[in-house]
Amino acid sequence: MSTPLYITMHPADNVAIVANDGGLPAGTVFPDGLTLVDKVPQAHKVALVDIPEGGAVRRYNATIGYANKPLPRGSWVHERLLTMPEARALEGLPIATVKPEPPPPLEGYTFEGYRNPDGSVGTRNILAITQTVQCVAGVTDFAVQRIKAELLPRYPNVDDVVALEHTYGCGVAIDAPDAIVPIRTLRNISLNPNFGGEVMVVSLGCEKLQPERLLPPGSIPIVDERNVADVGDTAEAKLDVVCLQDDAHVGFMSMVQSIMRQAEEHLERLNARRRETVPASELVVGVQCGGSDAFSGVTANPAVGYCTDLLVRAGATVMFSEVTEVRDGIDQLTSRASTPEVAEAMVREMAWYDAYLDKGRVDRSANTTPGNKKGGLSNIVEKAMGSIVKSGSAPITGVISPGEKLKQKGLIYAATPASDFICGTLQLAAGMNLHVFTTGRGTPYGLAEVPVIKVATRDDLARRWHDLMDVNAGTIATGEKTIAEVGWEMFQLMLDVASGRKKTWAEQWKLHNALVLFNPAPVT
Amino acid sequence: MSTPLYITMHPADNVAIVANDGGLPAGTVFPDGLTLVDKVPQAHKVALVDIPEGGAVRRYNATIGYANKPLPRGSWVHERLLTMPEARALEGLPIATVKPEPPPPLEGYTFEGYRNPDGSVGTRNILAITQTVQCVAGVTDFAVQRIKAELLPRYPNVDDVVALEHTYGCGVAIDAPDAIVPIRTLRNISLNPNFGGEVMVVSLGCEKLQPERLLPPGSIPIVDERNVADVGDTAEAKLDVVCLQDDAHVGFMSMVQSIMRQAEEHLERLNARRRETVPASELVVGVQCGGSDAFSGVTANPAVGYCTDLLVRAGATVMFSEVTEVRDGIDQLTSRASTPEVAEAMVREMAWYDAYLDKGRVDRSANTTPGNKKGGLSNIVEKAMGSIVKSGSAPITGVISPGEKLKQKGLIYAATPASDFICGTLQLAAGMNLHVFTTGRGTPYGLAEVPVIKVATRDDLARRWHDLMDVNAGTIATGEKTIAEVGWEMFQLMLDVASGRKKTWAEQWKLHNALVLFNPAPVT
Ligand SMILES: [Ca+2]
Ligand SMILES: [Ca+2]
Ligand SMILES: [Ca+2]
Ligand SMILES: [Ca+2]
Ligand SMILES: [Ca+2]
Repeated sequence: MSTPLYITMHPADNVAIVANDGGLPAGTVFPDGLTLVDKVPQAHKVALVDIPEGGAVRRYNATIGYANKPLPRGSWVHERLLTMPEARALEGLPIATVKPEPPPPLEGYTFEGYRNPDGSVGTRNILAITQTVQCVAGVTDFAVQRIKAELLPRYPNVDDVVALEHTYGCGVAIDAPDAIVPIRTLRNISLNPNFGGEVMVVSLGCEKLQPERLLPPGSIPIVDERNVADVGDTAEAKLDVVCLQDDAHVGFMSMVQSIMRQAEEHLERLNARRRETVPASELVVGVQCGGSDAFSGVTANPAVGYCTDLLVRAGATVMFSEVTEVRDGIDQLTSRASTPEVAEAMVREMAWYDAYLDKGRVDRSANTTPGNKKGGLSNIVEKAMGSIVKSGSAPITGVISPGEKLKQKGLIYAATPASDFICGTLQLAAGMNLHVFTTGRGTPYGLAEVPVIKVATRDDLARRWHDLMDVNAGTIATGEKTIAEVGWEMFQLMLDVASGRKKTWAEQWKLHNALVLFNPAPVT
Repeated sequence: MSTPLYITMHPADNVAIVANDGGLPAGTVFPDGLTLVDKVPQAHKVALVDIPEGGAVRRYNATIGYANKPLPRGSWVHERLLTMPEARALEGLPIATVKPEPPPPLEGYTFEGYRNPDGSVGTRNILAITQTVQCVAGVTDFAVQRIKAELLPRYPNVDDVVALEHTYGCGVAIDAPDAIVPIRTLRNISLNPNFGGEVMVVSLGCEKLQPERLLPPGSIPIVDERNVADVGDTAEAKLDVVCLQDDAHVGFMSMVQSIMRQAEEHLERLNARRRETVPASELVVGVQCGGSDAFSGVTANPAVGYCTDLLVRAGATVMFSEVTEVRDGIDQLTSRASTPEVAEAMVREMAWYDAYLDKGRVDRSANTTPGNKKGGLSNIVEKAMGSIVKSGSAPITGVISPGEKLKQKGLIYAATPASDFICGTLQLAAGMNLHVFTTGRGTPYGLAEVPVIKVATRDDLARRWHDLMDVNAGTIATGEKTIAEVGWEMFQLMLDVASGRKKTWAEQWKLHNALVLFNPAPVT
């Protein structure tokens, strides 16, 4: 058996987690003399001192709970023994109090990307077919299969053809105040840097979300012939829309052929594009976690946090998200805001989400999963502390609301639900060109629209899921590597993946999860 | 040009709709002397008498609006000229006042179906793969492609393999009061008659919606070896679950192979099944409309209503749905309820939905689409009157809430949103084995799980979409056929489609829309 090992996050903590694969039996003696009085599963907490009944249990230098009964030194501290603290009030928070020295810029790092007319850079060269409504999904899918089989082989520089299927567009309260969220999400996904500005739309005709409502004039930054429908010899700039209910469509195949004909024009232009060397500052990285365990906040997320700092130093953009997973650390975030306005925007997003959950008669504690608890995370407070570390240590310079597009670089708080699919979908809309996903329990998550780099928190998972996990941060727990080493490894891998030199495992297997919209408004 | 024709729904109506393709110009004189003072598009309303400012505009013997200004005889009556009536209060409704004579039973009609262990009957023989969570969708999809390519050819009696993909299962407030709706929907879809009781589940492992929560012991009516996981030589009845996070899975392909191995057992048993002659009373028909125009309530929906009466006389089950589209006719429905309990259940569903919409700061009027209005439907009241006729004239004998499974035969009000995909998904959960969908504007709607018979409201649509529309009810407007004739035609087609003797167009082209869950609870 390997040496018994526990990991403490902060000198002020009174619990640590057991690092060894398979956990440790009662009676185990650690090198410093700490003796387990219970069997403690891997990634679960052990008391470092005697904690009295009602005493604060501290991890990440934060109170993650209060002891329901005396917890002797060496005992297993699990969720049934803790009472969760109340949510931090959103008043009286420290605002922009931390003014970290700007770290030295990181220069000279580049990748090979596709420069877009609007200045953004793609990491892949994909034809995306925007849909106004779920009604057209079957026809579009039929057409996409034919495009892939019959057209794509003739355009070898195009990586893929992706139907942006979603369940919105009709049968929804489209004039409800909150409907702005799904609508702008769909709009902004169409404009993701990986699609090269080649926007084409399949519409039914009678749907609530009409093409002009989805993409009003001016919403596509560069309107030139690339976004112009072929409508005879009129030269008017017009959204490139195939409308299935158009009178010109007689028979199913005429619809399929319309889609294929329009697709071919875009494929031709996409095929002519070439990668060029661009600075690392053109990376727009969305980070999130899913299937978390207690190692998430010890290995993978701190390594992501280190890498986030590298990216910010290189002038790139990093988004962190997941409202319910940062809610309990709001004071850390507001204090790291670069300006009071940024702090206020964060508080606004948290307050909106509190109210949203309250309407459904739940609160932030609805976040945690059976897997989280099995994995050693006692409650949302502990989960949040381990989730926030993905954001590193840089000042937070901007905040966007769900479905909004990024307007600036640096470290950005992109407010989204923690749901892996909804978070990923909203980060796509924000303009992400690379996705980093940490997981402890393991998930085969992938997206068709951007590469997803998956980071395992544990050695054991990385070993078993050797062809699904791209980075093994479990080496941090075993002592093989430092957080900095894994952070740098990730940074280098990002440049390789962004350049197309390496494919992620999700890309290899073509593992594609659904776009899942955040629609806080009613359906009808 | 064909003879100018208008259609009135009830002798007390003061508006009618123009039937002619392309509409009619101002100055057109109808055979009875009515002269158009405006150009009136097809399916739009014309005033039959002078209607004073503030006067009630009546169609289907119901007030669909009040005139905003004087509407002279022969003028075009469109939505901008009408003020919509308030929603009918849910108090003081007529309760079970209509006691129609039970119509003579319709005997001797049969179809060829798959009899299930629980007594239900399938119209198709499909292996459905239930998923607890979106996380597993990519892996399951990969496995299903291989199953179709490598296994299905060896099981020729099995029609298809369908992954029941959905966006629920984690990242959701699973303990919120309203979470019961999506959970029971998923559970009951797994038990749809077309899947032969062969339930197999793909689970991630750490998700909120654990397999035992989705399908608790006893929820699968017949637990025999068909639903038993192979766990060595233990004979314990256990749900057949492939868990991706299982320690036994080393590498991606081991997950794929687990799914394929389990699928093969179910395919073997499904393949051994044979169609047998069963009475028409085993049909469970879900009816809905989508992409409606003013002809929907004149041709297709009345024909469906006629067919509904035939089905009920044959002892079958018919579900009608779409809360916001029957809300304005609630008095008609409560008066047709077979008992006060049924009427009260309908009122309860309407009240729940009123409150649900209100939370999102909208009301029932959020239902109508741009296509409805273009198609001549001025508002939700007019749309509702034309939607309700799908329910025919039989007494309403039962009500189910969203996601519930049917417990009885006859004419049932299955409360669902009007959204085509959500309504279809909930009717699948209720146990539908055949789906009838009427459309005026046209939609290529289809489901992988049950055959969808699509009915066009207009000759023109049926002509243009000749290989997407299964029934042309437009012949009712042209006078070629009566409502009864089209109703009987539908009834016969249902028996043919249910028997597998005919395929619907959606089946021919494999047009499959997504399962879309109704989740009134928050995401996290
Ligand atoms: Ca997370
Ligand atoms: Ca997440
Ligand atoms: Ca089995
Ligand atoms: Ca409808
Ligand atoms: Ca509908």
